[in-house]
Amino acid sequence: MKTPNFDTFTLDSGLDLPYWKSSRFASAIANNASPRVLANACRMNILSSIKAAGSGHIGTSFSSIEIILACRYYLNNSSFSDTTQEQSGIFFSSKGHDAPSIYAAMHMLGEISDIQLFSLRRLDGLPGHPEITTPGVPTNTGSLGMGISKAKGFIHANRINGVTKKVIVLLGDGELQEGQIWEALPTASRDDMSELIVIVDGNRIQSDSWVKNVSPNQNLEAAVKGHGWNYLECNGHSFDELLSTLEFGGLQNGPTFIYAKTIKGCGVEFIQNFSENGLFYKFHSGSVSDRQYSSAISEITFRIENDISCTAYISPEQISELNGLECVESELDSQKPKDRPLSLISHWAEILPKLMSVNEHLVVLDADLSYDTGTYIARKDFPDRYIQAGIAEQDMVSMAGTLALSGKVPIVHSFASFLTMRPTEQIFNNATEHSQIIYMGFLAGLLPSPPGFSHQALTDVGIMATLPNIQIIEPSCKKELELSLNHAIASKLSTYVRIASVGDLTSEFTKEDFRPGGLVLRKKGSAFAIVSSGPWLTEEAIKASDMIGRDMCAVYTYPFLNSPPIEETIDILEGFEKILVLENFTPAMATTINLMSQPSLKSKITRVGLYGIPKNGWNSEVMRFHGLDSLSLVDLLN
Amino acid sequence: MKTPNFDTFTLDSGLDLPYWKSSRFASAIANNASPRVLANACRMNILSSIKAAGSGHIGTSFSSIEIILACRYYLNNSSFSDTTQEQSGIFFSSKGHDAPSIYAAMHMLGEISDIQLFSLRRLDGLPGHPEITTPGVPTNTGSLGMGISKAKGFIHANRINGVTKKVIVLLGDGELQEGQIWEALPTASRDDMSELIVIVDGNRIQSDSWVKNVSPNQNLEAAVKGHGWNYLECNGHSFDELLSTLEFGGLQNGPTFIYAKTIKGCGVEFIQNFSENGLFYKFHSGSVSDRQYSSAISEITFRIENDISCTAYISPEQISELNGLECVESELDSQKPKDRPLSLISHWAEILPKLMSVNEHLVVLDADLSYDTGTYIARKDFPDRYIQAGIAEQDMVSMAGTLALSGKVPIVHSFASFLTMRPTEQIFNNATEHSQIIYMGFLAGLLPSPPGFSHQALTDVGIMATLPNIQIIEPSCKKELELSLNHAIASKLSTYVRIASVGDLTSEFTKEDFRPGGLVLRKKGSAFAIVSSGPWLTEEAIKASDMIGRDMCAVYTYPFLNSPPIEETIDILEGFEKILVLENFTPAMATTINLMSQPSLKSKITRVGLYGIPKNGWNSEVMRFHGLDSLSLVDLLN
Repeated sequence: MKTPNFDTFTLDSGLDLPYWKSSRFASAIANNASPRVLANACRMNILSSIKAAGSGHIGTSFSSIEIILACRYYLNNSSFSDTTQEQSGIFFSSKGHDAPSIYAAMHMLGEISDIQLFSLRRLDGLPGHPEITTPGVPTNTGSLGMGISKAKGFIHANRINGVTKKVIVLLGDGELQEGQIWEALPTASRDDMSELIVIVDGNRIQSDSWVKNVSPNQNLEAAVKGHGWNYLECNGHSFDELLSTLEFGGLQNGPTFIYAKTIKGCGVEFIQNFSENGLFYKFHSGSVSDRQYSSAISEITFRIENDISCTAYISPEQISELNGLECVESELDSQKPKDRPLSLISHWAEILPKLMSVNEHLVVLDADLSYDTGTYIARKDFPDRYIQAGIAEQDMVSMAGTLALSGKVPIVHSFASFLTMRPTEQIFNNATEHSQIIYMGFLAGLLPSPPGFSHQALTDVGIMATLPNIQIIEPSCKKELELSLNHAIASKLSTYVRIASVGDLTSEFTKEDFRPGGLVLRKKGSAFAIVSSGPWLTEEAIKASDMIGRDMCAVYTYPFLNSPPIEETIDILEGFEKILVLENFTPAMATTINLMSQPSLKSKITRVGLYGIPKNGWNSEVMRFHGLDSLSLVDLLN
Repeated sequence: MKTPNFDTFTLDSGLDLPYWKSSRFASAIANNASPRVLANACRMNILSSIKAAGSGHIGTSFSSIEIILACRYYLNNSSFSDTTQEQSGIFFSSKGHDAPSIYAAMHMLGEISDIQLFSLRRLDGLPGHPEITTPGVPTNTGSLGMGISKAKGFIHANRINGVTKKVIVLLGDGELQEGQIWEALPTASRDDMSELIVIVDGNRIQSDSWVKNVSPNQNLEAAVKGHGWNYLECNGHSFDELLSTLEFGGLQNGPTFIYAKTIKGCGVEFIQNFSENGLFYKFHSGSVSDRQYSSAISEITFRIENDISCTAYISPEQISELNGLECVESELDSQKPKDRPLSLISHWAEILPKLMSVNEHLVVLDADLSYDTGTYIARKDFPDRYIQAGIAEQDMVSMAGTLALSGKVPIVHSFASFLTMRPTEQIFNNATEHSQIIYMGFLAGLLPSPPGFSHQALTDVGIMATLPNIQIIEPSCKKELELSLNHAIASKLSTYVRIASVGDLTSEFTKEDFRPGGLVLRKKGSAFAIVSSGPWLTEEAIKASDMIGRDMCAVYTYPFLNSPPIEETIDILEGFEKILVLENFTPAMATTINLMSQPSLKSKITRVGLYGIPKNGWNSEVMRFHGLDSLSLVDLLN
């Protein structure tokens, strides 16, 4: 039996993950290994690091790896050896989804250690989206659309210092829907930024589905050239073509925009296959099953060993033969979403179409997150009242404004971070019209923590509580979610419904208490009370109460975060010795401030919440780190 | 002597303002008056309503009036008579600067009364930027870039209702620098929005100067067509050409973008003259002097009486002859800014270049507001460290981020509303990098109130206090401004410096107290204390103390809005019976919350601040309305 052409990293679970060590890369580079082999070896490392992490963006990491290698090679004076010398420029990714690919390239070049490679998305490990805490990463990422502006900032600084250096920024093709991209173009050409190269990973699939179906780039060349830029295209999986295009682009006057045509998930057949009328691409984010992993590794190994390009077709039969597994392709159905654990997202996916069937005024707006915000059933059932805005949150929110003025009740969906921070002035403008809009912000709060702070919305409550005329409701379970929407719709007010996407609280409660300023009893108790909101945090509170035992600690939710407490709430809380108010957000004019404004409660209340910028890592580690797990709560009550 | 061809509105001051009553328009329309005459009569009304208001945007109102009249005519079934019947569509302005022109057209069509016309920018009058509170205005304006998205919202609502109606939105050419404009384009063409017509008031001058110098639209036609839109151009002062272009555009498949070439200030020679290398166009905002007013009215009257187009040249001699005044053109110097009352803006204009001369790391970023944020001297003295971002706040803030990572200290300028709400996620992203950026937000707080809530930043403190790693300082006088910047720079932290653009507090204070959590004594007192920040609000506090007399009421400023009080502050405040904490912003995790968190102070403190959406109107009326004038403060202390 021949020696396998890879090393092995063993997880705590015992699973062996094939990968290439830095040293193997060094010797391959010294022996003039082809870029095809290096890129596919990086794919192995990408997949294994994501498998270890439990989540990550496989599709775009696979589509972008040749681009990243070519950019690094170009800036490293046309070499993969010795990156310690002065680089001829700066390279970074704007979207940051391609973190595993960025890291794989850095690891190949010896900038990241073997151990680090497998610390992806762990506490104090490699962040889910690249951050400057990792030496060599030039700027923080994770929020789309900022890259060209950031590149221009680097160039201005260099120019002030009298330095001429290339700056290359990698964008996604879905990312081109963000207005900031286009906002950044004109002054780059005004300022003759020949230092600037933008390269787009043109893999034609965004979060949910095909770019052409979400928000097509009609004539990208004309649009880009119209802003005074150079425009080039190339094959994004051909290292040589990428390199010559970068070299050619680098010699042009003014900024250059390169559209590199790629295949999402390229290099593994079942990851890159997506039907032309597919609705749900499965490998945008998340990991793969053990079976999928084995199959993919076999295919990648085969490509490495035979020096076969990632774009060469390998038949299902051949793959089956390689790994002894049946082809996994049949597991996939591009018309159906992936299974996911029960959460407020899955509940919302069911509740929303029910609401729409009885209320013809409801109109859904979505920013390319139909899977992650649960709008996909409504989209199918009510296509006339579903508006796909693309990754264009400002546009989406302003559209919602005039829909509301026209008598509709728009329900606007995105991740809480993006929904509350990207179109903030647009939400304010809508609020000045006293119309009714429902904003649904998902991924609210600390968890899930693997993607990092750009996706962990902790500032959403402070911002939405600052904007006028908006009530904030954070439901904790399916029933509270239903009641939240019923209340939001009936109130005729604008509402921000804050959705923690993790957890599924199933305990019962009586409906009567669900109103602004009211408490919802989740568990009885005699001496202490915990006031919480959201599914996982309330679960932790209940667990803490169980650990304390003897029915000592009551648990309530306070769903209307920015409403002052009603009399009954004050009466109830006055009966306790000690009250913990849990806030899955940074300090805001919300729950704690509202409750502490009651003189009778002030001395009893301790806020347990978040401050500043959250840690990223596995949910369990991060929850513990920030003192929001049940054990930490027990400590505070003992 | 012949009867003058106008009516007269007499101000309280006794000044007579010539204008056309609605009834005069009605009879002119019935007698088939030419569009030239109607447009110039609207110009008279625009100028007189702005003269009555004391401020307004003359330049863009004069450049856009023919466009507005043509759009209204087109949608009113090709007629200026009887707008009470069903309109064939919706028309609105995106920028809202052209409010006086929008109102003049509405008044001409009988939708606004003669009295209302002269309520411009007054409490409960016509808002500085159009709002839905005025019947006939479809949506709230004042924040740039939202118009196309809003038009799309109307169209989606119409489509859901099975209605096909045109929606025409008027944009500025400077406004095209906002990313949201470009974000809004792709899905309009995806959705075949033939109902949508965008028309640009292409007057080539933005807030400060020429568009071509600020951020040129390179090849607008290519850029717009690249997103799948139709593109047309026309003469924006020819009613007939505008009408035929609208009619042609309205018949195309897909959305249509019309660039109407206009002249800013068109119709009055001295208002439209701006030299090709001019730096400061004087008639973007503000009113005119009595002398300028007389001259302009004479010229407009001459054009009306002789049915002369706004674009026909009239020589200085001829104008002089008309009004008996010397030509006012010599008063203008396009290289110098307008005089303005002393305020923190004028102080900043002087302080900034001094700071830059001793600190080579400082880099200034500006979003087309060099006059209103006082960066124009720094721009002249340090062109290599001045970056004109154009009206592109997100781009500007992200550039600042990487300048900071490169060792520069960027100082980012805009109006507080736009700076804190348009690039909120970009500021957050920068904050996660723990770099040092100084954000300078002007027009902070309630005053000036004539422009309306889009420009009255009350939410800025709440938002910036929510974002991590940002200290907030609000200086009250020139000395505090200097100390604020010294502190901000020395601290190595990111700082939001909040500038109330109105007032000039000249009282002395001792420097020692200026530090985070510290109080600055502005006036001694024995029994009561007022804690304030910002120039005009502190002036009101001092006036209130003077009125109370007997050295009863101390006045302090608390410049570090989101810093907890130091011991000395607590000690000082404990000595008073009653403390008013003034907040020129809506509730936030700032001064009041910080001070009230001290048990010894809580019962003594009354917050006097703002809630929700502010009124617009004259400063004195609005200050009084919101209880932040000296008389209201005296009432609270007696």
